[in-house]
Amino acid sequence: MSVSAATIVDQLTALLGANAVIGEPGQMGIYLHEPRKRFHTGAAAVVMPSSIEQVQAIVRWANAAGVGIIAQGGNTGLVGAQVPLRGDEVIISMAKLDRIRAVDTAAGTMTAEAGVILENAHAAAEAQNTIFPLWLASQGSARIGGLLASNAGGVNVLAYGNARELTMGVEAVMADGQRYQGLNSLKKDNTGYDLRDLLVGSEGTLGIITAATLKLFPKPEDYETTIVNIAGPEAALPLFELLRARIGGRLNAFELVPHIGLEMQLKHGFLDSDPTAGASPWYALIEVARMQGGEAGSLMSAIETAFEQGLIDNAVFAESLADRTRMWSFREQMSEVQSKEGASIKHDVSVPIAAVPQLIAEGIAAGERVSPGIRAVPFGHMGDGNIHFNFSQPEGADPKAFMAEYDEKLHEAIYEIVLKLGGSVSAEHGIGQLKVDLLKQVKDPVALSLMRTIKTALDPKGILNPGKMLG
Amino acid sequence: MSVSAATIVDQLTALLGANAVIGEPGQMGIYLHEPRKRFHTGAAAVVMPSSIEQVQAIVRWANAAGVGIIAQGGNTGLVGAQVPLRGDEVIISMAKLDRIRAVDTAAGTMTAEAGVILENAHAAAEAQNTIFPLWLASQGSARIGGLLASNAGGVNVLAYGNARELTMGVEAVMADGQRYQGLNSLKKDNTGYDLRDLLVGSEGTLGIITAATLKLFPKPEDYETTIVNIAGPEAALPLFELLRARIGGRLNAFELVPHIGLEMQLKHGFLDSDPTAGASPWYALIEVARMQGGEAGSLMSAIETAFEQGLIDNAVFAESLADRTRMWSFREQMSEVQSKEGASIKHDVSVPIAAVPQLIAEGIAAGERVSPGIRAVPFGHMGDGNIHFNFSQPEGADPKAFMAEYDEKLHEAIYEIVLKLGGSVSAEHGIGQLKVDLLKQVKDPVALSLMRTIKTALDPKGILNPGKMLG
Repeated sequence: MSVSAATIVDQLTALLGANAVIGEPGQMGIYLHEPRKRFHTGAAAVVMPSSIEQVQAIVRWANAAGVGIIAQGGNTGLVGAQVPLRGDEVIISMAKLDRIRAVDTAAGTMTAEAGVILENAHAAAEAQNTIFPLWLASQGSARIGGLLASNAGGVNVLAYGNARELTMGVEAVMADGQRYQGLNSLKKDNTGYDLRDLLVGSEGTLGIITAATLKLFPKPEDYETTIVNIAGPEAALPLFELLRARIGGRLNAFELVPHIGLEMQLKHGFLDSDPTAGASPWYALIEVARMQGGEAGSLMSAIETAFEQGLIDNAVFAESLADRTRMWSFREQMSEVQSKEGASIKHDVSVPIAAVPQLIAEGIAAGERVSPGIRAVPFGHMGDGNIHFNFSQPEGADPKAFMAEYDEKLHEAIYEIVLKLGGSVSAEHGIGQLKVDLLKQVKDPVALSLMRTIKTALDPKGILNPGKMLG
Repeated sequence: MSVSAATIVDQLTALLGANAVIGEPGQMGIYLHEPRKRFHTGAAAVVMPSSIEQVQAIVRWANAAGVGIIAQGGNTGLVGAQVPLRGDEVIISMAKLDRIRAVDTAAGTMTAEAGVILENAHAAAEAQNTIFPLWLASQGSARIGGLLASNAGGVNVLAYGNARELTMGVEAVMADGQRYQGLNSLKKDNTGYDLRDLLVGSEGTLGIITAATLKLFPKPEDYETTIVNIAGPEAALPLFELLRARIGGRLNAFELVPHIGLEMQLKHGFLDSDPTAGASPWYALIEVARMQGGEAGSLMSAIETAFEQGLIDNAVFAESLADRTRMWSFREQMSEVQSKEGASIKHDVSVPIAAVPQLIAEGIAAGERVSPGIRAVPFGHMGDGNIHFNFSQPEGADPKAFMAEYDEKLHEAIYEIVLKLGGSVSAEHGIGQLKVDLLKQVKDPVALSLMRTIKTALDPKGILNPGKMLG
């Protein structure tokens, strides 16, 4: 890199004005510190464009100057895609591009700019009696652009799909500064290559998403929510199949949590009361939407059948919004509560649904083999085959020594099982900088080569999020 | 092109054996004659590989020789993507690669080779009490590879999505002969660019799909099917919204047909009896799936509400499989019956759903303005915003004179309305060779440039389906 940070700040200030540029490292904190505190590299500058034209101007400047640029939304990503890798990059915060351009209930779409916070998108949809069903723990700060660039998942993928499937069209600034206009409200459009899905999930390495047309859905009249007591993942699988056959697309969530997760939350005061029907080796949080004027009690009836078939031991149904909220908090606090129990080692993996029981059994055994006394805390989106295969250190162990000794070994053990089962080493969090080396090891070499070819063709100078995903 | 057809046949015969090569133009008929008989160019040869390795060998040979190759499935495409444009190309029939490699009901997937006929995929799924819900009129001859390459739609897109959304992973031979291995049974996999969706819908211009992992769904217990009498598309829109809010994902189909379609079918003996509740300006064919053990009568109840709200005039429900079959025949024969009424001019277009009434009103008016006496026959997938905006010549007109005078003018008039409404000039049939010039006129120039960049990067010699889609 031939341009100094001082020059970069001067040039960007000339381009955008002083108010849109942060050059002082001490003021960059919120743009650099990501949730898991794994990455600690500085940036040459942070810029905050307030129009698409300014984004285009920044990209054109970066292309001419050969400076790396990183589009950033709410800075909630878990793999370091949205923070610097080298230290000489410019972060483009999309936070000021936060306009909801249109909510069109007749077309069933919302057009939102990249900087719109997910919770604000939810509110705008609900104000029109519709829902935008991308729901995840970070929705109070995650922004649309980052959610799409990372193809975010969350707890509603089962019924509605991930971010890619919730997007009808995108607008993006490409590496040469041109604006790709792909916004539309069309359910069907077979006029050329699928550029939308190429940009969604590309982690800012192929273009900078500036706005998107998002799919809205009718707001269900209400939900039936239950937590069932279940012996283990082996029983969860036929239960899931039973529900899928009886309830189909209204099955919103099927989440699995082990007993240790409940214990941790009660111990650390994360829950004011036990949301389950009593102690059980495992719990499944299940939710079904009731459409307007639709049948009530279909989950209750299916759960009764499951009980008769011996698939579950007990169940409790939410009888109020407070009940439902408590049940969901139990699920959503799973990752956070682990921080109260010392060091943790985490894996966001997926396998074919039928292989989830084997993944969990073998993963627990591998943990115990690699690090005796380790506490396995696998939980998550059973209905998507997506398990957050987390571990907490043995009680009383030294966190740093534990990480130094076991982090790498445990990754190897878990990923080996995942790959053997035909799974993915990144189900919903992406590659970023955390999994670049891993991707090279596990991905089909032809796929890697195709990805590099596309990257080079669309960003020949390598200015878009350099080093991320493909290294 | 420097290689003669005779040399091509000799070299391919040396590569694959004489039984796998057709060099005699007289024997190529079924590979050249496509459904609408619009394209009449010959091929240098037709080859029929019986293994992926043979496909790879053909592509490597083509790459070295600089010969254009066209992957072909059931030859049912409507835009000429699967037949020659120049006359010096080699057609690769995928018909012998027709193995269903696996049906995994626990994972909810089927892995099928490119040459599998759609009806055979249906049968394999149903044998395991599941469904593969890609349903369209040509399913008795269309093959998986072509259906994916064209991102086929059909009558179930409303509930299940188009071919792209029904595909979990693909295997493909790329322009350099390498095999991309992207088959998987994962609902979530965020490990890199979305190569699957780039290949699906690329009409054989970026790679040759050789197999795919397809999504299976629980087989509904049964269906509720109705044809309602409705004043017009303006009333169909609130009816659709009512059903979507009350029935959600179980709403399988919402198809619109004008009265002239019923008249034509009764006149020409396409129907043995009238499947409707009596004459009406328009009809909507609506179908809802009932899940196993699920509520019956939800469509009946919603239709009663619609009747009370004055949205519909009458309705008839299928009371037997024969009734249901007759109702669907009425819908599916719409395109074919037009051939009995002289020349027809057809447009496969989509608009945002809310704009369908305006599209139909303005399209009918434009038809009458351009060609007085012309008979508008717009019908199709209202629920997807996808209307087959067809016209039949005025009664008694000379077909050839009619086409010569009005074909181009009517296209212009309809596409102008579609584009004004933010629509697509090819909703589900694709671009092929029919709409190459149209695409250049109407597509975002940045999108076109991105598509060309990707094409050049992945197929630098331009051997894959040359001239199609991008010209």
